[in-house]
Amino acid sequence: MTPSVTVLGQGAMGRALAAALLAAGHRAAVWNRTPGRPVPAGTLELPLSEALTSDLVIVCLFDHASIHETLDPHAGKLAGRAVVNLTSTEPASARELAGWAAGHGIEYLDGGIMATPEMIGGPGSSLLYSGSAAVFERYRPVLEVFGAAEYFGADAGHASLVDFALLAGMYTMFAGFYHGAAMVRAAGIPAAEFAPRAAAWISAVTGSLPEIGAKIDSGDYAEPFQPLTFTKAALDAIVGASREAGVDLDIIGAVRNLADRQIAAGFGGHSSERMFESLNPPAAR
Amino acid sequence: MTPSVTVLGQGAMGRALAAALLAAGHRAAVWNRTPGRPVPAGTLELPLSEALTSDLVIVCLFDHASIHETLDPHAGKLAGRAVVNLTSTEPASARELAGWAAGHGIEYLDGGIMATPEMIGGPGSSLLYSGSAAVFERYRPVLEVFGAAEYFGADAGHASLVDFALLAGMYTMFAGFYHGAAMVRAAGIPAAEFAPRAAAWISAVTGSLPEIGAKIDSGDYAEPFQPLTFTKAALDAIVGASREAGVDLDIIGAVRNLADRQIAAGFGGHSSERMFESLNPPAAR
Ligand SMILES: NC(=O)c1ccc[n+]([C@@H]2O[C@H](COP(=O)([O-])OP(=O)(O)OC[C@H]3O[C@@H](n4cnc5c(N)ncnc54)[C@H](OP(=O)(O)O)[C@@H]3O)[C@@H](O)[C@H]2O)c1
Ligand SMILES: NC(=O)c1ccc[n+]([C@@H]2O[C@H](COP(=O)([O-])OP(=O)(O)OC[C@H]3O[C@@H](n4cnc5c(N)ncnc54)[C@H](OP(=O)(O)O)[C@@H]3O)[C@@H](O)[C@H]2O)c1
Repeated sequence: MTPSVTVLGQGAMGRALAAALLAAGHRAAVWNRTPGRPVPAGTLELPLSEALTSDLVIVCLFDHASIHETLDPHAGKLAGRAVVNLTSTEPASARELAGWAAGHGIEYLDGGIMATPEMIGGPGSSLLYSGSAAVFERYRPVLEVFGAAEYFGADAGHASLVDFALLAGMYTMFAGFYHGAAMVRAAGIPAAEFAPRAAAWISAVTGSLPEIGAKIDSGDYAEPFQPLTFTKAALDAIVGASREAGVDLDIIGAVRNLADRQIAAGFGGHSSERMFESLNPPAAR
Repeated sequence: MTPSVTVLGQGAMGRALAAALLAAGHRAAVWNRTPGRPVPAGTLELPLSEALTSDLVIVCLFDHASIHETLDPHAGKLAGRAVVNLTSTEPASARELAGWAAGHGIEYLDGGIMATPEMIGGPGSSLLYSGSAAVFERYRPVLEVFGAAEYFGADAGHASLVDFALLAGMYTMFAGFYHGAAMVRAAGIPAAEFAPRAAAWISAVTGSLPEIGAKIDSGDYAEPFQPLTFTKAALDAIVGASREAGVDLDIIGAVRNLADRQIAAGFGGHSSERMFESLNPPAAR
C-alpha cells in the first residue's frame, strides 16, 4: 500500500500532524530519525527511502540544518514530488530551501504553524503558507486537516516572516505578563490570581491594534490618540512602581526607551504609536 | 442645591466620570483648574471651595503633585469627607496621600481606572480600589456607575500596584505588536493588515496565562511545558528574522535575554516560565 502522505519527524508536532491525517482518513506514513519513539496507532512507520515515495512529504523536524541532514541524501528520490516544510525556519532559510528544492525538481511550500500540538485539527489552529501556489491548491484539502490554511504568495519566506512576527508579539506579551506578575507579588498576589485578570485586560486592549496599525501605516502621528508625553508619564510611573516592588527593568525599561527616543527627537506632542518608529522599521512600500 | 458628588479635574477622564454620574441621576458638581474648559451639560461648575462641600469628592487630576497643589490649601474643609482619588498615582504616592488624608481627618480611597474615557459607564469598564473599606462600601453604588468596582484591601497602594502591573502588560504587548508590525513591513504587509491577525493570536495565547501563572507560583520549573532551550531557539530565529528585516532588537532582544540568563545559570532543560525569575521578582509570600 503506497501512503498518500508522509510526515517526517515524530516529535510532539509531527505526531499531532500524523494523528490528524489519520483521523481524516488519509493513509499516512511516518518516519523519525531515532527509531522506537511512540507514533500514532494506525500510521505506517517506514524507512526514510520508502517514506519518500509519497507524492506529498510533510517535514516537521527541529530546524533548518536537520532538514538538509535528512533530505540531502535523498534529493533525487524527491524529484517530481511536493515537500511541505512545517519546521519553524527563518525566512532566509525557507528561501534557501525553496532554491535547493527547485534545483532538484522538487515542488516546495513553506508553512508556519500557529498552534500547539494539542490544537492541531481543532478550531483554533491556523497555518500560514507561502511558496508553490500549485502545491497549496492541489493539497489544500489535506492541509486544512491541520487547521485553517492561508496562502501568502510565492516568496517561500513570507509565511515564516508573518509567523515569526506573531511569535515575537506572543513572547513579548508573555514577558509583559512576567513583569506584571513580578510587580503584584510585592503585594502578595499570586501569579495565578493575577493571570485571569491580565488575560482579560490584554485581550480587551488588543481591540485597539487595528486603529494603532492604521496610524502607523499613515506615517502621520501629529494628531495624537494619546500623546507621547502622556505615555511617557505613565511608563515613568510604572517604572517607579516596579523599582519600589524590587522588579528589574529589563522589559519595561526597553518599552519606555521607545517613547524616550521619540520625545528626545522632539515628538512629545505626537501620538504614542510613534514608538514604532524607534524600532527603525523598514520603509513602507 | 448641595451637590451629592464632586469631580475635581475636567480633563478627558474627569469629564467622562461627571457625565456618567449625571446620566445615573446624581447631582454632580465639577471643578477644573483652568476655567472655561468644556464640561458635561447639566453639571454644576463651582469654585473649588464650594465644590469641596460634597460628602464625596472624586479627584481625577494629572499626577500626584497636582493633587497636593489642589487639595493642600483646603485640607481643613475636607475633614470628615471622603476623597476617592482616581488620578493614576504610584503605590508609594497613594500611601502618602492616605497618610496625608488621615492626618486631616479625611477618609481616603484610592482607585485605578482600567478603561479609556469612552469606556466609562460601559460594559468593559473596570476600576480597582484600595484604602478605606468604609468609603468603598458606603459609595459602592456611586462607584459602580463608572464600571465594575473591585476592592483590594486597606493598603491604599494596592489597587495602583495591580493597575500598573496590568498597564505594564499592556504597554509591553503594544511594544511586541510594534516589533511584529515592523517585521512584516519588510514583506510589504501594512500594520493595519497585520493587526487583526495579531489581535486574534495574542488574545488566543492569553488563554495560557493561568497555566503559566500556576507554574510561576509553584516555583518548580523542572517539569517543562516548553523547555528554555526550545524557547531560546525560537527567540534566536525571531531575532535572526528581525535582523534580516532590518528591525532593531530593543524589545525582542530584551525578551531573549530573560531566557539567556536562565540558560546561563544552567536551567536550559527547565520550563520557559523560569524567564520570570530573570526579572528578580520579590520572594513569594
Ligand atoms: N511544539 C509546538 O508547540 C510547535 C508549534 C509551532 C511550530 N513548531 C515547530 O515544529 C517543529 C517540531 O517541533 P516539535 O514540537 O515536534 O519538536 P520536538 O518534539 O522536539 O521534536 C523534534 C523532532 O525533530 C527531530 N530531529 C531533531 N534533529 C534532527 C536531525 N538532525 N535530523 C532528523 N531529525 C531530527 C527529532 O527526532 P529524534 O526523535 O530523532 O530526536 C524529533 O522528531 C519545530 O520546528 C517547531 O518549532 C512546534
Ligand atoms: N485618559 C485615559 O485613558 C485614562 C485612563 C486611565 C486613567 N487615567 C488617569 O486619569 C487622570 C486624568 O487623565 P485625563 O485623560 O483626564 O488627562 P487630561 O485630559 O490631560 O486632563 C488632565 C487634568 O488635570 C488637570 N491638571 C493638570 N495639572 C494640574 C494641576 N497642577 N492642578 C490642578 N489640575 C491640574 C488639568 O486641568 P487644566 O485643564 O487646568 O490643565 C485637567 O483637568 C490621569 O492621572 C490619568 O493617568 C486616564
